[in-house]
Amino acid sequence: MKCEVVAVGTELLLGQIVDTNSSWIGEQLALAGIDSHFQTKVGDNLDRMIAAFEQALDRSDAVIVCGGLGPTPDDITREAIAAVMGVGLRRDEAVVERIRAMFYRRDRQMPANNLQQADVPVGARVMDVQPGTAPGLICPVRRGRGSGDPANTAAPDAGKVIYAVPGVPWEMQKMVSECVLPDLQARAGERHVIRSRILRTWGHSESGLAELLDPEMRRLDSTGEATIAFLASGMEGLKVRITAKAADDETALSVLSGVEARARAVIGDAVFGADDDTMESVVVDLMQSQGLTLGLAESVTGGLIAARLTDVPGASRVLRGAVVPYDREIKTGVLGAPDVNAVSSEMALAMAEGACRVLGTDVGLATTGAAGPDAHEGAEAGTVWIGLHLDGEGEATRVRFNMARTMVRQLGTITALNLLRTRLLSRGG
Amino acid sequence: MKCEVVAVGTELLLGQIVDTNSSWIGEQLALAGIDSHFQTKVGDNLDRMIAAFEQALDRSDAVIVCGGLGPTPDDITREAIAAVMGVGLRRDEAVVERIRAMFYRRDRQMPANNLQQADVPVGARVMDVQPGTAPGLICPVRRGRGSGDPANTAAPDAGKVIYAVPGVPWEMQKMVSECVLPDLQARAGERHVIRSRILRTWGHSESGLAELLDPEMRRLDSTGEATIAFLASGMEGLKVRITAKAADDETALSVLSGVEARARAVIGDAVFGADDDTMESVVVDLMQSQGLTLGLAESVTGGLIAARLTDVPGASRVLRGAVVPYDREIKTGVLGAPDVNAVSSEMALAMAEGACRVLGTDVGLATTGAAGPDAHEGAEAGTVWIGLHLDGEGEATRVRFNMARTMVRQLGTITALNLLRTRLLSRGG
Repeated sequence: MKCEVVAVGTELLLGQIVDTNSSWIGEQLALAGIDSHFQTKVGDNLDRMIAAFEQALDRSDAVIVCGGLGPTPDDITREAIAAVMGVGLRRDEAVVERIRAMFYRRDRQMPANNLQQADVPVGARVMDVQPGTAPGLICPVRRGRGSGDPANTAAPDAGKVIYAVPGVPWEMQKMVSECVLPDLQARAGERHVIRSRILRTWGHSESGLAELLDPEMRRLDSTGEATIAFLASGMEGLKVRITAKAADDETALSVLSGVEARARAVIGDAVFGADDDTMESVVVDLMQSQGLTLGLAESVTGGLIAARLTDVPGASRVLRGAVVPYDREIKTGVLGAPDVNAVSSEMALAMAEGACRVLGTDVGLATTGAAGPDAHEGAEAGTVWIGLHLDGEGEATRVRFNMARTMVRQLGTITALNLLRTRLLSRGG
Repeated sequence: MKCEVVAVGTELLLGQIVDTNSSWIGEQLALAGIDSHFQTKVGDNLDRMIAAFEQALDRSDAVIVCGGLGPTPDDITREAIAAVMGVGLRRDEAVVERIRAMFYRRDRQMPANNLQQADVPVGARVMDVQPGTAPGLICPVRRGRGSGDPANTAAPDAGKVIYAVPGVPWEMQKMVSECVLPDLQARAGERHVIRSRILRTWGHSESGLAELLDPEMRRLDSTGEATIAFLASGMEGLKVRITAKAADDETALSVLSGVEARARAVIGDAVFGADDDTMESVVVDLMQSQGLTLGLAESVTGGLIAARLTDVPGASRVLRGAVVPYDREIKTGVLGAPDVNAVSSEMALAMAEGACRVLGTDVGLATTGAAGPDAHEGAEAGTVWIGLHLDGEGEATRVRFNMARTMVRQLGTITALNLLRTRLLSRGG
């Protein structure tokens, strides 16, 4: 089973947005054990879209088309797929009702343009999962091989398929996970499984991790039972991906468990989670298991730690609140910090203690620093002081990131949460 | 002149890294007035690379191949291009010397592997610009049309060309800017430019915008002087992209200005900025021009508004701070809100007023709501109340997003900032 991805949108070709959808789909296909040899981007142009779809079908058994399902005149994926299928469009009244209900729930009338989203190629099946107004489509294709040439009608491609999903990432991801991948795997008769596990780490560099894992990687090179790869992911940490391919789930998972155990043994506490764990979800769980409440005082990170933690459903069990004392007067006035240098150990400690006191929490976590581009209160751009107040004791840690403002703030955020995590681990253990 | 981009690398197909190179090249081609209709990603596989290069040459006059020029065994772009050209490789001693000198300057010996980077297809020209160890190549191709079919040797493609550049972004960018684009423009003879402008909006749906702009889009359909497209970008707003193609810069910019003026006339104040403007940068600028300071009280958005605003360098001129009163006791204790329903107009107003008072600011902006997945204090998931306190007056607005938790928080953030923006506009005007 081979499956290609075609991303539709002139804005992709013009570089106005980066096509992260194809990358995400490519990763999912690999994890599902489905080969994917080409990815194509094409603009909102009917003839070129048809040519791209035809060609992908020539090379592969299935094609995932991403984008061009919106309600505006340049959204013509439906028309292009219908042309490839050699059929017309029909209006699906059930989809009309779904879309109308979606607007109704937002107290709004459905604009007439949205009706075109309910036009589906004759013979296509609408996916059950529909997170937004664009329906996903499963479109069986039976056509003459090389149908670009109308004289050639021999050897129809039995059982090929085009999946159409919207370009809005969260809508697309839900449809691919819940409809496209299961459908693809059902079509792929003979089947082996590829399973992977991601260890999420913070505290080692990529080359440091590679050195730690070198013996295990050499061993895997000789046995071929799994591979290890690294992926730096900013605020999401540095990922170590272990991938095993085997005849069945049980074998693959057993290989993964073995490699994971050996990897954790050498990486240690820098592994903060696995797979879908995030630093913030791990911290919320640890805090809750120790029965502690958290208050934040964020200057250089400016609310980013709070924003990350509150993205975790149920964070309110742990996080009581945050103060973002961006102005020095708020540091002293609201948090009661002394009149010291704003980018200093003393200030970080005072802010952490102030967060505990003002927000009435067991733990206070604070950041202050110079995000850049300029130096701030004598500290070089990229300097971040982290203060932690817990069990009546304070500690302050200084880190420096020689990077742009946004990255300094993001890496400051994961570093602060990681300090809290390691402190909780040593406290609990 | 049409030019395609082919990005080479199995890691791109597997989603291990996102292909930002093609996006960057696509943008440069558009700015240079060169049409680019397809972009392809292909893995490190000789046959499939040859097929991708052949096909791009069938459709276009020039192909930029990005990646696969490194020193490791999976770097085989040189071999694939030589196969397409129907020639062998020769070792270029001048390139060997360049690479050796590069290692020498870093006090290192050149590893033997790097020698393969000096192997170039016979007839290819090495680019003068070489920022790293990989040389860029300009490879003229003369071949039978549709050379996938060996029987067809008629009608050679005179003057087609493959450019090979490395996948390391800064090396690639320097080569494309300084060698590839000038070479392409020289080949193109007749030259036109493409210029685009993005209007960033919040307040209309995509289909609502399409209806407003329908007369202008019909007019442009008939004149062909420009196109309009829409792009939903979550917390970044809904973008309207105007693209004009003309003989020269002056004409293109004049067309853009005319279309922009007509678009702004119908969209109105929902246009919050253009091109690189963000909602947060626009709000910071407006606040500063009116000499106002801002305090935030964020419950449902949990620090996200503060995090966005503080990502703008110089935000400290306007933002004094924020309180994230995630627990009800912080709402009443720190902000002094009354003991009313947490998801209500009264609470939103009290939080906004409390932010002004506690943080000592002219303006208070507050959010409270139910991010989901569950209802909260009787309010359905997705409900967001926004409170705004300014010039001694308060106003509260309710919106509802029928979406996942993360999106509710993000759309709540841009909606709150947009309310502040429109209030500032009406105040200033």
